[in-house]
Amino acid sequence: MSNAEYPKTAINKLGRLPKRGKYDYETVYSIIDESPILHVSFNDPEHPFPVVLPMLGCTINFEDPDAEERDIYIHGYVSGRLFRHSKETGEQGLPVTVAASIMDGLVLALAPFHNSCNYRSATAYGHANLVTASEERLHAMTLITNSLLPSRWETSRSTPTPAELSSTSILRVRIASASAKVRTGGPSEDRKDLKDEALRGRVWTGVVPCWLAWGELVAGKDNGAGEVDGGIEQWRVAENERGRKVAYAAIEEGG
Amino acid sequence: MSNAEYPKTAINKLGRLPKRGKYDYETVYSIIDESPILHVSFNDPEHPFPVVLPMLGCTINFEDPDAEERDIYIHGYVSGRLFRHSKETGEQGLPVTVAASIMDGLVLALAPFHNSCNYRSATAYGHANLVTASEERLHAMTLITNSLLPSRWETSRSTPTPAELSSTSILRVRIASASAKVRTGGPSEDRKDLKDEALRGRVWTGVVPCWLAWGELVAGKDNGAGEVDGGIEQWRVAENERGRKVAYAAIEEGG
Repeated sequence: MSNAEYPKTAINKLGRLPKRGKYDYETVYSIIDESPILHVSFNDPEHPFPVVLPMLGCTINFEDPDAEERDIYIHGYVSGRLFRHSKETGEQGLPVTVAASIMDGLVLALAPFHNSCNYRSATAYGHANLVTASEERLHAMTLITNSLLPSRWETSRSTPTPAELSSTSILRVRIASASAKVRTGGPSEDRKDLKDEALRGRVWTGVVPCWLAWGELVAGKDNGAGEVDGGIEQWRVAENERGRKVAYAAIEEGG
Repeated sequence: MSNAEYPKTAINKLGRLPKRGKYDYETVYSIIDESPILHVSFNDPEHPFPVVLPMLGCTINFEDPDAEERDIYIHGYVSGRLFRHSKETGEQGLPVTVAASIMDGLVLALAPFHNSCNYRSATAYGHANLVTASEERLHAMTLITNSLLPSRWETSRSTPTPAELSSTSILRVRIASASAKVRTGGPSEDRKDLKDEALRGRVWTGVVPCWLAWGELVAGKDNGAGEVDGGIEQWRVAENERGRKVAYAAIEEGG
């Protein structure tokens, strides 16, 4: 476990509720890696609004897997035009913001204004480039696949065809700055409300924990490997247990 | 049920996998309203990267609740400086993009390149303004609270104190354009892989459905209304059942 963190700057420093802020690599990366969907935002000079794409990805240090600092690798299509644009303007890549958010529970207080959510969110700011080196691309594809389901790369037909390789884009986001925000605990109440015995007797307060649940496997129409796969079933059950534990632990951790 | 939709323009038209695109109000709004977290992106002229904030909100038509078209109302803090900036530059509000994504399942194919996710995502582009009129603010607070938990506004101490009112910001995003993307069905395979009987006998293919699960209620330390609230418990069980059904139905709907 490392204590290394991103320096607080005007870009990543939390203005609102700064006590919930975390800047260490470990927290930022773990939220990005746990969140199944990353929201990637960038500007297209031809459009008035930021573009936001839901994408898949994970954190990796390709050059040195043991290094504390990592990049974000993202799988998916972003118009090449944008990268050409960022090259023309002399930037070191397309400026992007990657956001990941995980809901851990609904926090219910005596008054709506004190309701909250337990959550973990991470935001990373950096420059995106298309990865062109084959080895790096394959490495990223392997880890992104396995971040969705452990060992899936190795257990399926992983050697890509030329057509698959040419149709798959991998982006590397070199993180310039990042932060995380984590809310835990139960409700925190207005003092006056706490003295109102009638209100307290009437309104239930506490937390409804939540997590991403994985249901029973549904074999596809072309599946020829038996109705259920033992390894995937084991992962599913463990993942449900882990999600549940994290959501309940967040309540105990205090606000 | 309405068939009204957002016109396809350069802003909202899907470039990638256009068959998954949906432009009707109903689909866009239902995804935004079901997603517990909205990712709101905008530009801060003082920073090189887009800002992305996880926020709570829902779709509302304040002037006419029966109108087909709605705005997005968002609860939370965005620096007033940004709104001043957008006024100075003569814009009709701060240009923002609101993204909502819901995972419905992991789609596992014979080869990693054909893996996918069942998901529903919506992206709305519009102009954000701070809501200042009391009636509109209260209406939005009521609906945002109840979008997290039905009737919570009415069943808790909802009349706000002056301090609560002044510390709560409500943003209205007037939607200029929007689109949704929905992926359903099982895996779609490479033709050659389907002819490889050894591969098909070895690699399980299908869908692992997923949804947001709500766990047993955990009463807070100041709770005085009994360990479990019947209404919330009922909502929780129904919500779990609904989430499960949606995830399984997505598999049946075909790709």
